[in-house]
Amino acid sequence: MQDHRDDTYAAVQPAIPDPPKALPLNVTGLPKRLLSSEVISITQSPTESLLSSLATGKLTSTAVTTAFLQRAGLAGKLTNCLTELLPSRALARAKYLDDYLTQHKKPLGALHGLPISVKEHVGMKDLDLNAGFVSWVGRVAPDDALILKLLWKAGAVFYARTTEPQALMHLETSNNIYGVTVNPFNTALTPGGSSGGEGALLGLRGSCLGIGTDIWGSIRSPAANNGVFGFRPTSFRLPMAGLAATMYGSEHIVAVIGPLSTSLEGIKVFMKSIVDQQPWLYEPSLVPLAWRDSSSQGTLLRKGADGKRKLRIGVLADDGVVRPHPPILRGIATLVEKLRGNPDIEIVEFPPYNHAEAWRIISSLYFPDGGAEEAGAIDASGEPFLPLTNFIIKDNPNMKEMSVPEVWRLTEVRDKYKSDFTRHWNSINTTLAGPEVAGGSLLAVEAAEQREGMVDVILTPTGEADKVEEGYKPRNEQDRYNYELYKLDTYTDAPISLQLVGRRYEDEKVIEALEFMLDVAGMGLSPVEAKL
Amino acid sequence: MQDHRDDTYAAVQPAIPDPPKALPLNVTGLPKRLLSSEVISITQSPTESLLSSLATGKLTSTAVTTAFLQRAGLAGKLTNCLTELLPSRALARAKYLDDYLTQHKKPLGALHGLPISVKEHVGMKDLDLNAGFVSWVGRVAPDDALILKLLWKAGAVFYARTTEPQALMHLETSNNIYGVTVNPFNTALTPGGSSGGEGALLGLRGSCLGIGTDIWGSIRSPAANNGVFGFRPTSFRLPMAGLAATMYGSEHIVAVIGPLSTSLEGIKVFMKSIVDQQPWLYEPSLVPLAWRDSSSQGTLLRKGADGKRKLRIGVLADDGVVRPHPPILRGIATLVEKLRGNPDIEIVEFPPYNHAEAWRIISSLYFPDGGAEEAGAIDASGEPFLPLTNFIIKDNPNMKEMSVPEVWRLTEVRDKYKSDFTRHWNSINTTLAGPEVAGGSLLAVEAAEQREGMVDVILTPTGEADKVEEGYKPRNEQDRYNYELYKLDTYTDAPISLQLVGRRYEDEKVIEALEFMLDVAGMGLSPVEAKL
Repeated sequence: MQDHRDDTYAAVQPAIPDPPKALPLNVTGLPKRLLSSEVISITQSPTESLLSSLATGKLTSTAVTTAFLQRAGLAGKLTNCLTELLPSRALARAKYLDDYLTQHKKPLGALHGLPISVKEHVGMKDLDLNAGFVSWVGRVAPDDALILKLLWKAGAVFYARTTEPQALMHLETSNNIYGVTVNPFNTALTPGGSSGGEGALLGLRGSCLGIGTDIWGSIRSPAANNGVFGFRPTSFRLPMAGLAATMYGSEHIVAVIGPLSTSLEGIKVFMKSIVDQQPWLYEPSLVPLAWRDSSSQGTLLRKGADGKRKLRIGVLADDGVVRPHPPILRGIATLVEKLRGNPDIEIVEFPPYNHAEAWRIISSLYFPDGGAEEAGAIDASGEPFLPLTNFIIKDNPNMKEMSVPEVWRLTEVRDKYKSDFTRHWNSINTTLAGPEVAGGSLLAVEAAEQREGMVDVILTPTGEADKVEEGYKPRNEQDRYNYELYKLDTYTDAPISLQLVGRRYEDEKVIEALEFMLDVAGMGLSPVEAKL
Repeated sequence: MQDHRDDTYAAVQPAIPDPPKALPLNVTGLPKRLLSSEVISITQSPTESLLSSLATGKLTSTAVTTAFLQRAGLAGKLTNCLTELLPSRALARAKYLDDYLTQHKKPLGALHGLPISVKEHVGMKDLDLNAGFVSWVGRVAPDDALILKLLWKAGAVFYARTTEPQALMHLETSNNIYGVTVNPFNTALTPGGSSGGEGALLGLRGSCLGIGTDIWGSIRSPAANNGVFGFRPTSFRLPMAGLAATMYGSEHIVAVIGPLSTSLEGIKVFMKSIVDQQPWLYEPSLVPLAWRDSSSQGTLLRKGADGKRKLRIGVLADDGVVRPHPPILRGIATLVEKLRGNPDIEIVEFPPYNHAEAWRIISSLYFPDGGAEEAGAIDASGEPFLPLTNFIIKDNPNMKEMSVPEVWRLTEVRDKYKSDFTRHWNSINTTLAGPEVAGGSLLAVEAAEQREGMVDVILTPTGEADKVEEGYKPRNEQDRYNYELYKLDTYTDAPISLQLVGRRYEDEKVIEALEFMLDVAGMGLSPVEAKL
C-alpha cells in the first residue's frame, strides 16, 4: 500500500518536491521554501476566498486542485498523513467543473471546484477501504459514501485520502499499513487521532477542508493538535452510510462524521452544503433539521434589550480528574481575560460533573463484545496490536464481553448520566437555564462525552513560558501519568486549542457563538496562520 | 388489585350506576341511559369546547372532572378498562385549578382543568406501577413520569388509570391482574392493545384525551378498534422517563408515548402543550424540534400556483402478505372516492414493499434476550403466560437469544430495510419525491414499521354488507388465518378505521393533512359520534 501511495505521489505534475534530508522538528515552514509562490498563494487562501474565486472563474478548479495536490503530496512526504493522492480522478473532475462554469456561466454548487480531503475509511467507489486493518487491505468500496455523493453534487473535488490509526480508536495516528503520522509543528509529537491524517494535512495547508469522523475526540483531537478548526456535529445530522468500521449496527455509542477546516467558513459551507440537500430523504435515521444560517435568518443567540447579541459562556478548565498542562490552562485564562469585560458576554464557571464516571461508562460501552470484532480484524492478518489498541481493548479495565441485557443495563446508566449532566448544565446560574455554550480544555470536556456540537479554536502560539506549579501533587494515577509527560520543552511549537460545546442539535449556535467570541477577542485569524 | 379498583369506583360521588345484568353486545348506548344529562353533555363535548369552557370558567374543572369520573367508572364496569380511578387526587387538583382561575382570572395553561386518562405503566408518584405483571404488583412509582409533570404544568387533571396486557405486547388487552378488557362497540371483540384500556375508555367517552404507548401499533390498534383518534408521534419527540417496562435501556426498537383523543384538536393540544415546554432540556435524548402550529405558522403542505394547499396521498390498501377484511377495503375505497376529483388532492398508488421481511426483522428484534426479561417477570409470580404472550415470545419463530454482535448484524439489516423503504417511498411518482403522506389499513402499514407519525381516522359506521370475495384463495398461512376469522356478523358494530402515515418528524404535517382530508371528505365529525 505504501508503494501504491508513493506511485500516486509520483503521478502528480509538476513533480512534488522531495524534502531535504535533515528536517527541523517544525516542518511547517518547508512548503514556502519548496513550492511555487502560486501554489502557496492558492493553498493559503481562506476557504471562502477560494470558493469565491472558483465560483467566478478567477481561479480554475484545475489550478486549485493542482496546487493542493502539490502541497498535499509534500505534506504526505513530511508527515505521512496520506494513504493516497487521486491526481487523475481529481483533475478530470476539475476539468469537468471548469468546463461547466464556462458553459453555464454559473458554478455547479456551493463547493464548486474545491478540493476536499477525505479520511480513508469513508468509502470511495472502486478504491481500497481498509479502515486501518491489514486484513482489510484489498476490500474495495462498491460505491461512494452518501456524504461524498452529496458533496459531489455541491461541486467538490476529491483529491486526497488520509491516514487513520489501527481500530480507529487512538488519539494518535499509526497503523501497520502506512506507519506513523506525525505532527507538522513538532514531528516528535502526534498529530492526534483518529482523524490524524486530516489534522496533519490541514496543519500543513495541504488541504483547506477535510472530512473526519469522531466518537470521543477523533475530529477534535487532530484539529486541536494542528491548530485548525474541527467540528463534531450532533449525531444524526450528517449521513454515515458507506463508511467502513467494525461493530456496524451498534447503537450504544454513535460515531459522527464532520469537517476540519483552516477557516470557520469552511466548516459552515460544508455543513450547509450537505444539510441543504436533505440527507434524511436518503438515510432515514437522520433528523430533518434544516441548516439555520444566522446570516440569512438572523442571530441564533439571545438578544438583549439593547438589540445586541448576548452570550453566556460556562468555563470548564479542569475536569477534576486530570489537570490540563499549564499552557492549556493559560490558554483558557487568556481567552477568558479577552472576553471578560465585554458587556455582551457573561462568563460563568462550569463545574465538572463526575467525569470519572463518564469515562467508566463510555469505556465500558465501546466494545461490549469484549473487543472481539476489533481483535478479529487485527488477528486475521497476524498484524501486531499497537500500544493504544492494547490500551483501549486489552488493558481497558472497564471492558468485558457482555450479554444483551448487560448492555441494556449499562445503557440505562449511560442515559441516567446524560440526564444528570443535562440537569447540571441547566443548574449553572439558573436564571437563564444554564450557559448557552461551554468552553474548556479538550480532555476536560471530552470526559463529559455525549455533549455534541464542538468546535476547536486555536488560541495562542506555543512555546511560551508555562512552568508547572511547584509542588503539585497528582490526584490519581491518570493525573500522575499526564503530569509526568509534561516538560517545558517537550511541546515546543505545538498549537494550543480549546473547544466550545453546545447542547445537542444546537450546532449552528455553537458556530455563531464561536464567531462572536473570536470577533470580541480579536482572534479572527488563527495565530498559527501568520507563521506559515 | 381488583378490590382496590372497585374501592376507587365506590369512592366516586355521586355513585357510579351499576349496569343492568343483561347487556347488549354493543354497550355504547348505556351511558346515555344511566348517567345524568349534564354528565352526558360534558363528556360528549369536543375536547376543544371543554378546554374553552374551562379556560373561561363557563365550566368548572370540578364539574368536568366529576362528570368524567362518573362516565369512566361506568365504562370500567362495562368493559373492564380501568386499573383505578383517582377521585380524591383528581378533585383536589380540580379545586386547585378552579380556585386558580377565580384568583388569577386566567387559566394555568393550555390544558387548564381537563381530565386526562393515563395508561397504567406511565408512573404516577406513590401509586402502583405493575405494567401488567403480577410479580410487579406493589411496586410504587417514586415520582411522576416526566410527561405527566409537563401535562400537569399545562393544567391537566389525572383521574383514571387504564389497563394494558401482560408484557405490553398484545394487540388485545388482558392480564392476570385485572382480567380481560372488552370492546364497548361489541363486547365479544377486543378493544385492541396494548393501550386497550384507553381505547375502550375513549370509545365510551369516559375520557376525551388519554395517554398510550406504542411500538408496533399499541396506540393505533386501540384507537382504530374504538373509533377514536390515536397519534403515534415520531420517536424522541415526547419524553419517556418514568415509564415501567422490561428491557429498559434497549435501543433497537424504540417505544413512543402519545395521545388518543375523541377529537383531532385533543391530539394537537396534547402534543403542543408538551413540546412547547422544551422537554429536551430535561431528557437529552429528545430532539429539540419546536411544535409547528400550522394555524399560526401557515400551512405545512405544499402550495400550488393558485395559492391553495396541495396534498399527494399514497394509498396502500393491501400489504401483499395478509389481505384486509372486506369492510376495511371498502373503507379505503370509500375515502379514496370522496377525495378523488378534488383538484387539490392527488392520489397515487403506494405499492407494498416486502412487508414479510419487515415483520421478520422486527419480530426478531423485539426480544433479543430470548424473551428472558419478559419470562422472568412473568415467572416470578408463577402467573400463566397468556396466549398472545406465547404468540410473540414462546411461539415466535424469529426469536432467539442473541449475542451482542448478532444484534448488531440484525440492526444493520433493519437499517438497510429502512433505507430501502425510504427509497421506495421516494420513488413513488417521483416528480415530487414521493407522496407527502400515505394511508392504508392498519395491518398493512403496520408491517412496514418504523414509519412514524400516524393518525387513525374512523371512516364509516360498521355492520353494512361486506361480503368476502367468492373463491378467494389465501396467499399463505397468516392470510388463511385472517381470512377464516372473518364472518359477516362477527364484527357487528365494530368501527372501521384507517391510518395516515408521514415521514419521520413530520408529525405536524400528518395532522394537517388529515384535517385537510377530513374536511374535503366532509368527515369532520366521527360518524360514531352521532350514535352515542
